[in-house]
Amino acid sequence: MRIVVALGGNALGNTPQEQLELVRATSRPIVDLIEAGHEVVLAHGNGPQVGMINLAMQIASESKSGMPEMPLPECGAMSQGYIGYHLQNALYEEMKKRNINIPVAAIATQVIVSSDDSAFSAPSKPIGLFYSEEKARQLELEKKWTLVEDAGRGWRRIVPSPKPVDIVEKESIRVLVERGHLVIAVGGGGIPVIEDNFRLLGVAAVIDKDFASAKLAEILDADYLIMLTGVDQVAIHYGKPNETWLSEISVTEAQQYIKEEHFAPGSMLPKVEAAISFAESKPGRKAMITSLEKAKAGIEGKTGTVISVSHS
Amino acid sequence: MRIVVALGGNALGNTPQEQLELVRATSRPIVDLIEAGHEVVLAHGNGPQVGMINLAMQIASESKSGMPEMPLPECGAMSQGYIGYHLQNALYEEMKKRNINIPVAAIATQVIVSSDDSAFSAPSKPIGLFYSEEKARQLELEKKWTLVEDAGRGWRRIVPSPKPVDIVEKESIRVLVERGHLVIAVGGGGIPVIEDNFRLLGVAAVIDKDFASAKLAEILDADYLIMLTGVDQVAIHYGKPNETWLSEISVTEAQQYIKEEHFAPGSMLPKVEAAISFAESKPGRKAMITSLEKAKAGIEGKTGTVISVSHS
Repeated sequence: MRIVVALGGNALGNTPQEQLELVRATSRPIVDLIEAGHEVVLAHGNGPQVGMINLAMQIASESKSGMPEMPLPECGAMSQGYIGYHLQNALYEEMKKRNINIPVAAIATQVIVSSDDSAFSAPSKPIGLFYSEEKARQLELEKKWTLVEDAGRGWRRIVPSPKPVDIVEKESIRVLVERGHLVIAVGGGGIPVIEDNFRLLGVAAVIDKDFASAKLAEILDADYLIMLTGVDQVAIHYGKPNETWLSEISVTEAQQYIKEEHFAPGSMLPKVEAAISFAESKPGRKAMITSLEKAKAGIEGKTGTVISVSHS
Repeated sequence: MRIVVALGGNALGNTPQEQLELVRATSRPIVDLIEAGHEVVLAHGNGPQVGMINLAMQIASESKSGMPEMPLPECGAMSQGYIGYHLQNALYEEMKKRNINIPVAAIATQVIVSSDDSAFSAPSKPIGLFYSEEKARQLELEKKWTLVEDAGRGWRRIVPSPKPVDIVEKESIRVLVERGHLVIAVGGGGIPVIEDNFRLLGVAAVIDKDFASAKLAEILDADYLIMLTGVDQVAIHYGKPNETWLSEISVTEAQQYIKEEHFAPGSMLPKVEAAISFAESKPGRKAMITSLEKAKAGIEGKTGTVISVSHS
């Protein structure tokens, strides 16, 4: 089976040393899937990493003359290089250890979003430094940023989270996947760009990596989309006495649970929504939400929450 | 013909805005080569960019708690994402404008160096901040860095510049090149890694991008390696009354000129050395040193300095 695996940026730690250790642990279950004969494509988040890069660039440009301000799309591109390198490095090692000869390549990925996306009129993702209210007002005027008060910690910039429309580098990704290479793509949901005639304009936005992974899985005609998270399965009535862990649910059931507000926005909700969007895109396609450690067991039907158009 | 083009990091400016403009100008002569029917693979430097990233990360980690120190290989990986994104973006636009349908992909590239390379006992490339002598002594002890006094401006870290031995992602690069895609690879000379059993260890070093490009051209069995620089041709007796611009020279002549110290270390010398190494690697291979604007005219035999084993 062709499987797109979406890895969370939170699973990668906060320092380069932590990340280098964590990607090694991450590589084992990924290579387990490859060893079981599956074609794997790896997508990943970049929340903490692009946050750190963006913050470092901001601190540097505010404290030293000659240091440029770094726009968010460029920070995202840097995070793709940073995380892509570590993943390439760790997957290479894990495969060499098992005598598997599959090349690994991380591809810088631009993802097209629509300027008509309603997200652009309702920015929601906080990034970068905390400011005083006075400084926030100044930045709104000077840089045309949107800033909001963040849980008593100060004012912070928020950016929109538009939906992915297309993947610019899809042909290169497809060629490598079809040749059996392990491709790392749409890092951090991809670098968001808007098409303007022949030009692709980078925009200060964050594409949800689960939606970008679903789009990638769709374009690559994958059989399975696995979204990795901190738990083995999705629950309804989470944390309540009637808490129920789900094994297989239909798209219709998933939509009903969304309506009943079982899933936390910014956490399980986008995963379930991305799962629905992939499962609905073509008959036979399945999405699974599970933990990294259980990915292979999930594919074997032993755990995880599977979402498909109609389950048996 | 299959042509590896090596672009200098100095040609990319000092800010993201400058770089985004400059890559557009860079894309035109590159796409001219593609339009003329050649297969192009693009390599690039990252001197100013990795310097800026490394500096920003250093400033941030020294001025704010919780910001990690970022090792040089990771900064190099970030610069590959940053420059790769801009090149992808600009080349996409230039090709769309001309109705050329060739996918572009930047691949994060690790380049293997040997721990036996004599460069490791003689670090030579300055990077990062300037320090006082006292602070320099402290860093030598604490971080095992090598620091030297730099032209009266203070003390600065220097790192080794080992020769490239192999390119980790070569199979993925090859597959895409053979399918006619425009690949951007070995950015900044590649992320230097040392093989240690199955593991690839990132090392604080800088691989010369001209040598890395020559290695890439060799591995891809390219016909031509074009190293772009600020001048149309290479000169001997440069700046003197008997200054002579060279059109075609043999490897033997080039070696003689090196002995006579015609070429500046860190500037024209590594280019001529990389040209010799590629020209010698297989009969028929040619290397050219010219300016970006003259790349196509050079390939047509109108300008540039061509180095080959035996010229006609």
